[in-house]
Amino acid sequence: MTVAAVLRDALGDIVDVTEDALEAARADSSGHRSPGRPLAVVHARTVAEVQQVMRIATETRTPVVVRGAGTGLAGGANAGPGEIVLSTTQMNRVLEVRQDDLIAVVEPGILNAELNALLAGEGLWWPPDPASRDISTVGGNIATGAGGLLCAKYGVVRDAVLGVDLVLADGRLLHLGHRSVKGVTGLDLTSLVIGSEGTLGVVVGATLKLRRLVEGEICTLTALFPTVRAAAAGSAAVTASGAQPAIMELIDATCLAAVHAHLALPAPDAGTSQLTIQTDGPAAAAEADRIAATLGAVGGRVTLTQDRAEGERLLAIRRAMHGAMAALGTTLIEDVSVPRSALPAMFDEISRIEAAYGLTIPTVAHAGDGNLHPNFIFEGAEVPERIWAAADELFRAAIRLGGTLTGEHGIGMLKSRWLAEELGDDQWELQRQIKAVFDPLGILNQGKVFARA
Amino acid sequence: MTVAAVLRDALGDIVDVTEDALEAARADSSGHRSPGRPLAVVHARTVAEVQQVMRIATETRTPVVVRGAGTGLAGGANAGPGEIVLSTTQMNRVLEVRQDDLIAVVEPGILNAELNALLAGEGLWWPPDPASRDISTVGGNIATGAGGLLCAKYGVVRDAVLGVDLVLADGRLLHLGHRSVKGVTGLDLTSLVIGSEGTLGVVVGATLKLRRLVEGEICTLTALFPTVRAAAAGSAAVTASGAQPAIMELIDATCLAAVHAHLALPAPDAGTSQLTIQTDGPAAAAEADRIAATLGAVGGRVTLTQDRAEGERLLAIRRAMHGAMAALGTTLIEDVSVPRSALPAMFDEISRIEAAYGLTIPTVAHAGDGNLHPNFIFEGAEVPERIWAAADELFRAAIRLGGTLTGEHGIGMLKSRWLAEELGDDQWELQRQIKAVFDPLGILNQGKVFARA
Repeated sequence: MTVAAVLRDALGDIVDVTEDALEAARADSSGHRSPGRPLAVVHARTVAEVQQVMRIATETRTPVVVRGAGTGLAGGANAGPGEIVLSTTQMNRVLEVRQDDLIAVVEPGILNAELNALLAGEGLWWPPDPASRDISTVGGNIATGAGGLLCAKYGVVRDAVLGVDLVLADGRLLHLGHRSVKGVTGLDLTSLVIGSEGTLGVVVGATLKLRRLVEGEICTLTALFPTVRAAAAGSAAVTASGAQPAIMELIDATCLAAVHAHLALPAPDAGTSQLTIQTDGPAAAAEADRIAATLGAVGGRVTLTQDRAEGERLLAIRRAMHGAMAALGTTLIEDVSVPRSALPAMFDEISRIEAAYGLTIPTVAHAGDGNLHPNFIFEGAEVPERIWAAADELFRAAIRLGGTLTGEHGIGMLKSRWLAEELGDDQWELQRQIKAVFDPLGILNQGKVFARA
Repeated sequence: MTVAAVLRDALGDIVDVTEDALEAARADSSGHRSPGRPLAVVHARTVAEVQQVMRIATETRTPVVVRGAGTGLAGGANAGPGEIVLSTTQMNRVLEVRQDDLIAVVEPGILNAELNALLAGEGLWWPPDPASRDISTVGGNIATGAGGLLCAKYGVVRDAVLGVDLVLADGRLLHLGHRSVKGVTGLDLTSLVIGSEGTLGVVVGATLKLRRLVEGEICTLTALFPTVRAAAAGSAAVTASGAQPAIMELIDATCLAAVHAHLALPAPDAGTSQLTIQTDGPAAAAEADRIAATLGAVGGRVTLTQDRAEGERLLAIRRAMHGAMAALGTTLIEDVSVPRSALPAMFDEISRIEAAYGLTIPTVAHAGDGNLHPNFIFEGAEVPERIWAAADELFRAAIRLGGTLTGEHGIGMLKSRWLAEELGDDQWELQRQIKAVFDPLGILNQGKVFARA
């Protein structure tokens, strides 16, 4: 009996072998595809079903790829020949929201934006806000350790999860973490699972740390600079001034021009780069005034508004970035992160790499936390080797500057060949051994993260 | 040649075998002592010396206890016969403070308060504030995953460390984490090391995430309640109101009376329990007014001041707690943590256990985050079995309420027999296997955390 037949016998209709489902599971939002179709997609609805899939996978030594909405950008959820896809999108209930404890207990398949719409009704909020929040699941956010625009002020996923329920490769269920704010019982396996990209187990539930919605007004500023380096220096000046924006986004000249064209707005002056900043909370207006003064003093042309709709209009330029890039060709969105003071130096490195490889690398940055997304644009489905060579230089430059090759997208399959470069061989080997403690047969997300090309 | 002689040959004068040094290393601030003296205390000054100690320990299969200032409350740094003590208190330099990146790179032996005094000169701050901050090291704070009074608003150690340099049991040095705010390269081993209580390796350096000193005024409130349950309900009402105090401490009637006696203040009315609250930041005054109204509405007798010195005087009553307890006898300070809404229920459980065992259990709580410190007081150096039996009930009650048996002090040797109770056998075994990946010979902190009594 084939593994698909075993699954179907045990689990019935939730085992999907339709061409559409198998084909869709080959790729995520990176544009990268596996070499062929997986053997089945299982749409689990309960923890027990997840456990059963994992027991069958262990008995039959069949590799498993856990998959949420498939919005990843590193190929971490791409599934190929001989693999079971375990989809958690049908496990999308909110089991509990506690006003008094500021926690929510959720299943992994709920979309980030759906959860936040529901929480907003109670004056609450789960801060992680990846750009994909409308279409990505909370489970996927946990698996990748997602970031977003608000991280410098409100933290990343790692700061917003108290506990995780995890099904191991052999089907056993573990409850990691707790419902209390504090807790230091044994090793912090909750943190270890966050960002582990499906290599340690299947996240089947999570206890999330909530905040109350921020009271007060929201102020939005944009500042135009003649060069990207000047804009990066502007953002560094804001950070150094002691201000704490909720959002501080940098858009370089190529991106800004592409977005203006995409939205049919008048073209900006050649070379113009932009900072877009929001402040919130009780001191929002005073902080915005200070930031405007700081940016004016370093040569920025500042626009400031306290009108929320006008603020959203200014921010829409940043949010239109991915669409504008996609309109230019196939995109490899990179994700290096550096200490904030190194932003200008990282932009210098990008200029150097552009010149050396004869490429244009349109770049946006979460400037408040030093996370850059340089975009490589090309024709066709495969990343050309010349672009990987340029990306290789980009990664090495970020690591040299004290940063990392991935701030929030993860390693997946696209960056596994650089993992040891950043970790060092000893740490790489240690991490691989930890993975083996959770998954001794190596059936979870084979060929991802710890695979050396 | 004895191991002490091998160490002395290799490392010279930093190897200390004086009676005073060996005797001091037997105990931490828990009052618990090991059965005898360790074989040597090595006062490492450099990473290379730490590596050499670990290489000798591995070659000779000698167990090692890493030790900072010895202020732990769970016996985690207590060393006994046949063990090497590796002290990091001489590694106490601040290597780097970056205003622009809001990070500091430090050696592990610097005291928390020394570091913060230095940072304050630059308008900066490392938030973790264990009650021991004047006498505990940053390395020890990391090893225990320390908390403190400010955690509900400003986080715990886990939220305030970006990277850790770790020497493994065999002497190899790993650099975990990075200097950037974001980073998801591979597994988050920095978080795994935080709170690992010396079982995974020796922390020889750390990259800390700083904040700027909070601007604006500080308001302090106290509220008196006729019963501890009413005070607990008061703190729950504050949390439920949406206010976010920087500090919210609860002192039960026995503690309050003991502190008043200790400080020679007039005795409070029988049964009176107290909340002490501070607000800070730009909305401090408005928030304090709201909190005063909330507490008044639930029957609290409120005093409110915006004077910092007067505020410190009010907080001094809470800070005098440990001294007041120590004056009553030997103290076992417990450390359970529960979801905030469960605070009143946890106080009910404490009353029940007091009645069942004929004990008085004076208790203070970090009410803002649900972390309670019930104190057991007895004569002599050994914890009587009857008190362990009462503590056992306390731990089980906290776990039943969705909490944990240790919020911020750790497992050490005093709580290892309860660890599997909270983790479950499967997770306990998995954690033990992860420890073995770091320390295959099991020479780091033998008999702690993962030892079953």
